[in-house]
Amino acid sequence: MIGVLARSTAFFFLILNMFLHDDFLLRSPSACRLYYDYAADQPILDYHNHLSPGEIATDRQFANLYEIWLEGDHYKWRAMRANGCAESFVSGDATPREKYAAWAETVPHTLCNPLYHWTHLELRRYFGIEKLLGPGTADEIWDAAEQALGGGDLSVQSILKKFKVTTLCTTDDPVDDLAHHDAIAASNLSTSVRPTFRPDGALRVDSPDEFNAWIEKLMQASGKDVSSLATFVDAIKSRHDYFHEHGCRLSDQDLRTCPRTVPSEADAAKIFDQARGGVAANEEQRDQFFGYMLVHFGRWDVERDWTKQMHIGVFRNNNERVLRDSGRDMGYDSIGDYSQGRPLQSFLSHCEMNDALPRTILYNNNPVDNYLFATMAGNFPGKVQYGAAWWYLDQKDGIEAHLRDLGNVGLLSRFVGMLTDSRSFMSFPRHEYFRRVLCNFIGDAMEHGELPGDFDLVGDLVARICHQNAGEFLQLS
Amino acid sequence: MIGVLARSTAFFFLILNMFLHDDFLLRSPSACRLYYDYAADQPILDYHNHLSPGEIATDRQFANLYEIWLEGDHYKWRAMRANGCAESFVSGDATPREKYAAWAETVPHTLCNPLYHWTHLELRRYFGIEKLLGPGTADEIWDAAEQALGGGDLSVQSILKKFKVTTLCTTDDPVDDLAHHDAIAASNLSTSVRPTFRPDGALRVDSPDEFNAWIEKLMQASGKDVSSLATFVDAIKSRHDYFHEHGCRLSDQDLRTCPRTVPSEADAAKIFDQARGGVAANEEQRDQFFGYMLVHFGRWDVERDWTKQMHIGVFRNNNERVLRDSGRDMGYDSIGDYSQGRPLQSFLSHCEMNDALPRTILYNNNPVDNYLFATMAGNFPGKVQYGAAWWYLDQKDGIEAHLRDLGNVGLLSRFVGMLTDSRSFMSFPRHEYFRRVLCNFIGDAMEHGELPGDFDLVGDLVARICHQNAGEFLQLS
Amino acid sequence: MIGVLARSTAFFFLILNMFLHDDFLLRSPSACRLYYDYAADQPILDYHNHLSPGEIATDRQFANLYEIWLEGDHYKWRAMRANGCAESFVSGDATPREKYAAWAETVPHTLCNPLYHWTHLELRRYFGIEKLLGPGTADEIWDAAEQALGGGDLSVQSILKKFKVTTLCTTDDPVDDLAHHDAIAASNLSTSVRPTFRPDGALRVDSPDEFNAWIEKLMQASGKDVSSLATFVDAIKSRHDYFHEHGCRLSDQDLRTCPRTVPSEADAAKIFDQARGGVAANEEQRDQFFGYMLVHFGRWDVERDWTKQMHIGVFRNNNERVLRDSGRDMGYDSIGDYSQGRPLQSFLSHCEMNDALPRTILYNNNPVDNYLFATMAGNFPGKVQYGAAWWYLDQKDGIEAHLRDLGNVGLLSRFVGMLTDSRSFMSFPRHEYFRRVLCNFIGDAMEHGELPGDFDLVGDLVARICHQNAGEFLQLS
Repeated sequence: MIGVLARSTAFFFLILNMFLHDDFLLRSPSACRLYYDYAADQPILDYHNHLSPGEIATDRQFANLYEIWLEGDHYKWRAMRANGCAESFVSGDATPREKYAAWAETVPHTLCNPLYHWTHLELRRYFGIEKLLGPGTADEIWDAAEQALGGGDLSVQSILKKFKVTTLCTTDDPVDDLAHHDAIAASNLSTSVRPTFRPDGALRVDSPDEFNAWIEKLMQASGKDVSSLATFVDAIKSRHDYFHEHGCRLSDQDLRTCPRTVPSEADAAKIFDQARGGVAANEEQRDQFFGYMLVHFGRWDVERDWTKQMHIGVFRNNNERVLRDSGRDMGYDSIGDYSQGRPLQSFLSHCEMNDALPRTILYNNNPVDNYLFATMAGNFPGKVQYGAAWWYLDQKDGIEAHLRDLGNVGLLSRFVGMLTDSRSFMSFPRHEYFRRVLCNFIGDAMEHGELPGDFDLVGDLVARICHQNAGEFLQLS
Repeated sequence: MIGVLARSTAFFFLILNMFLHDDFLLRSPSACRLYYDYAADQPILDYHNHLSPGEIATDRQFANLYEIWLEGDHYKWRAMRANGCAESFVSGDATPREKYAAWAETVPHTLCNPLYHWTHLELRRYFGIEKLLGPGTADEIWDAAEQALGGGDLSVQSILKKFKVTTLCTTDDPVDDLAHHDAIAASNLSTSVRPTFRPDGALRVDSPDEFNAWIEKLMQASGKDVSSLATFVDAIKSRHDYFHEHGCRLSDQDLRTCPRTVPSEADAAKIFDQARGGVAANEEQRDQFFGYMLVHFGRWDVERDWTKQMHIGVFRNNNERVLRDSGRDMGYDSIGDYSQGRPLQSFLSHCEMNDALPRTILYNNNPVDNYLFATMAGNFPGKVQYGAAWWYLDQKDGIEAHLRDLGNVGLLSRFVGMLTDSRSFMSFPRHEYFRRVLCNFIGDAMEHGELPGDFDLVGDLVARICHQNAGEFLQLS
Repeated sequence: MIGVLARSTAFFFLILNMFLHDDFLLRSPSACRLYYDYAADQPILDYHNHLSPGEIATDRQFANLYEIWLEGDHYKWRAMRANGCAESFVSGDATPREKYAAWAETVPHTLCNPLYHWTHLELRRYFGIEKLLGPGTADEIWDAAEQALGGGDLSVQSILKKFKVTTLCTTDDPVDDLAHHDAIAASNLSTSVRPTFRPDGALRVDSPDEFNAWIEKLMQASGKDVSSLATFVDAIKSRHDYFHEHGCRLSDQDLRTCPRTVPSEADAAKIFDQARGGVAANEEQRDQFFGYMLVHFGRWDVERDWTKQMHIGVFRNNNERVLRDSGRDMGYDSIGDYSQGRPLQSFLSHCEMNDALPRTILYNNNPVDNYLFATMAGNFPGKVQYGAAWWYLDQKDGIEAHLRDLGNVGLLSRFVGMLTDSRSFMSFPRHEYFRRVLCNFIGDAMEHGELPGDFDLVGDLVARICHQNAGEFLQLS
């Protein structure tokens, strides 16, 4: 009897519940009210992404969906490979249109993956396209998008205006010149675009060729000679100064784990000299060198009053055949299960006692570390924040888990909020996505009397997480 | 006021919500429609279990509930012990009827454990018994089941037909002869019953007595002399060939972690010779020996186009008193917290670069490794799949977590679906259970506009997970 | 259209769903019925807390909210620091009233943290105050509470009666005299107040000053000379005897992990002598010494038929600057990510085979270990129980996860239930909180036909978890 009842009402429900409807992800009236009244209209402060400053400076116009959407998106690459696409259609020689067709074939197989939500949210918010992407609709969607892109309303700078991006922080190499940032600052673009200091190249002692090539660029960029660890550090410091002068207020570090020890200068110099001489550091030496350098970086950030981001726990380049044949960063990365607690604790403590702990945002890549990271942040109050769900966790369940875990052991009210971490100008709806998940999470608790039914009180929490907290903590704007 | 309202409506709700009602586990109209239209009628491809080929070949008739239900079920043993049953009623000398009575006393204490669902689902689906099992109903349920079993509709082969089992893969030792499989193939049973190659015995260098006893059996089965590691490998290879000729297309391996290294033949031979001489391998040597052998097994699987299953992470035989007094596999196993990432990555990479990575299904025993395993599978696209929730995780919450986590970081659409892993012919409703959980998980998202309301699209996903994907990936018709 | 509909009904819903309403946390009619009929009226057996026996014996009267609520509460300290309060308002020199004001400013920022629920639940249940605490209400709430506290109905013993606390187990140092417990036993307080034997001081070989100071106290308390490891053990044993005579039936141990090995007496004696001579044990020696002593403690517990509690996995005193400047236990603790499986298994097995495994309750601090701990408990049936969600996990989500995980792999029906673990007499509503979460968890399954709609059966489960199981397992009346 119940079965019959349930099945006969199914059709009725489905009329109401269209895919990606206006109240998408908002499962209660309180969630809706929070979203519409406190979240939806907030501007965007996208304090971490991998967008191209050059494309912003030149206000790039995209010719088609491939250019604006598919170039270099590792999420999509992995899905296409998992769906059986040949590599030529993923990172290979196929034409943009062929690659797009392969992506369109893959999309219906991404049901339940966040890519399915993002794909259709992006098609709607940029192009007003409500059709579901798949082999049968690929052509008309390509054409509609091409036409829209031709109209000029979707140039990079137009997109930044459309999504009310007040501040945007790119991710930059210390050896980069910041001419594009200067050009943007000199333009009348209302978005403040700032660089982020990410010195990956300075740490590659396990790969002497890359390390020494980077030092060449460093010498050029800094105009300083690098003949020793001390002059190496000096040259990087001069780039830190340069970045500061050009608006940088954030640094970023990617780490498997925090360094386990901080060696003496003499020990670090041995590792440095060895790498300069072409001998790769082993894992322990690599870790030591990280420890030595990161304390310097931290001290400079303290001196300049910057905020540091630490992205911890990715397990990279796992397919050794691909690494050998095609190199790094081809979309073969996993979540690692490293032991994080002790190195995190000892490194943060060491930095704090040596004037090397700036305001810091910690991101974990493995959700099993949520509680560890959130409670560790609370041991360094005023300095360390627990950052947003990152990479593989940047989806509804991962975001909810992050909010719940941070809420349970820390102060959600002080959370600095969302960022896109994106390489694509099509990703700004991630902020909308996050805000909907946030409002739904909090609205559900209101609905059941587990938070006060006081929209001024709770709505203020929402509004601050959407925008204000980031500006205050990062001291931007 | 709310309290009063809620309590006054309680009775009404309870009429609707009978235990195990038709729409059990299906909490929305969309879930119901998915289940009834796309899942319920699918046949079963049970590609991994521990059922007895002999009982299939001889079409065993069970005399009573003890025989069909309680023999050797570790899940029930653990529950009975936790409930205070003396060991004689668990694995000891008590009569079958006494053991059944002890189980019946335990059942009401398994509320919230999947055993409570499974128990009553099985009583219904096999015997039409809707009573709740407990001390007060034990006798009448025993009698009713005995009568039903006497009717002949519940012989092993009748059960396979009743549950539409199209293919069933048993788990076999390379030294087993496959006469039962041959007999089944020669019979007119419509179920295809295939062996699986699981060479646990070949790896037991940490237990020389067992290892050498197994080698005796290997020599007999293969007709080959084993005087060295090389002849040992040859003899096992001949069994791999034999299994292939007798329909085997799957291998299976149980591992704490993947091997950390793959040693040279000379190093492996030392460990082999030592074990042959009665000296047990230590943990590191055991791991090395695994590495050496598993690469061989993998290469044979590649050559024969088989699919390998890797069950990773159980922590076995934890009660050392029981292990000393009663031996292995008495129901004293836990979920382990081994560090899995690095060995998994390096072993899969090593195999891929040495033609030793067949199509592979990875199962993790600890749910904290879901994301690690699901993202690692994605690094070997086309080869490695992330398998179903296993052992302790084979329950509503564990299955949902698996679907959610795989969906979030991989392609649920390509998931090869459920298996029973069972030792009992009473376990086929596990497929129904899984399908209900699956449809509920997906139906909930449809209901809220988080998946398209297109039943052809989404129903196809469901149908493929229920049956078709497994057949395609495993290349079994 | 849906958005409009949802938003227009929001106001109506919010009238019904007042914060902390009568059916708080009870989201279904079945949950309500379970709570009101089987849980709400149960007495409290608070078998683990850190309450002061002296304050019970003397029936302390509290002057104000600071005294009864804020003294020494690390949860609140952490929240205040995370909210930016200066240390003087947290653990420093500010006046009680100033500290209270700082707490009141912090409370609105604890939305989504369990402190927000606890705070308002406590204000209601003790004082009938329904206002939300914040800067605007701080003064009137202070005054109202002061007046209520002046009335005498909220002395320590009155509180114990008000909350129907039948048994309460404090946490005590073996060197403590138990005069307060004797005084309470001799009084006509109806609550049975028992000590718990927690020998932290006996294990501090990594801190010789503290270790030797503790031994001084031990010699005084026991009247025995300590000149060697053997006499040290004897002296502690005499305190175990003394505790038993004074009503103790429980011991407690805090551990990062279980000891990895149990050394010989000679090896343990070396570590002991070294610490006596002022040389700190390193981590490995510390672990060995723990192993040696814990086997003794376990044996005594077995002989006396006590129950042992093992709290495992906290990562303590993580901020090294604070540790250096202010000492231990200032609220800078995290959840650790130690590898727990192997030491837990080997230590429990060793104890069982050496008559040193009493009835034991295992608590894990990191939720990722839920499955490991719950399945490990099941390997020692009749002896080892998986204990309640602890410390950071003692909140709605943590409690639900514990219930779900224990239910899935063990017998929820035998769970020994909740405790406050508190340092404050304001914390007894934690039992109410737990019971609501429990009834909601179970009621939801009833509501959907996933548990039988038989309130006698399921209500009995609830009632036993709330009170009866603890009394039976701990063998306290």
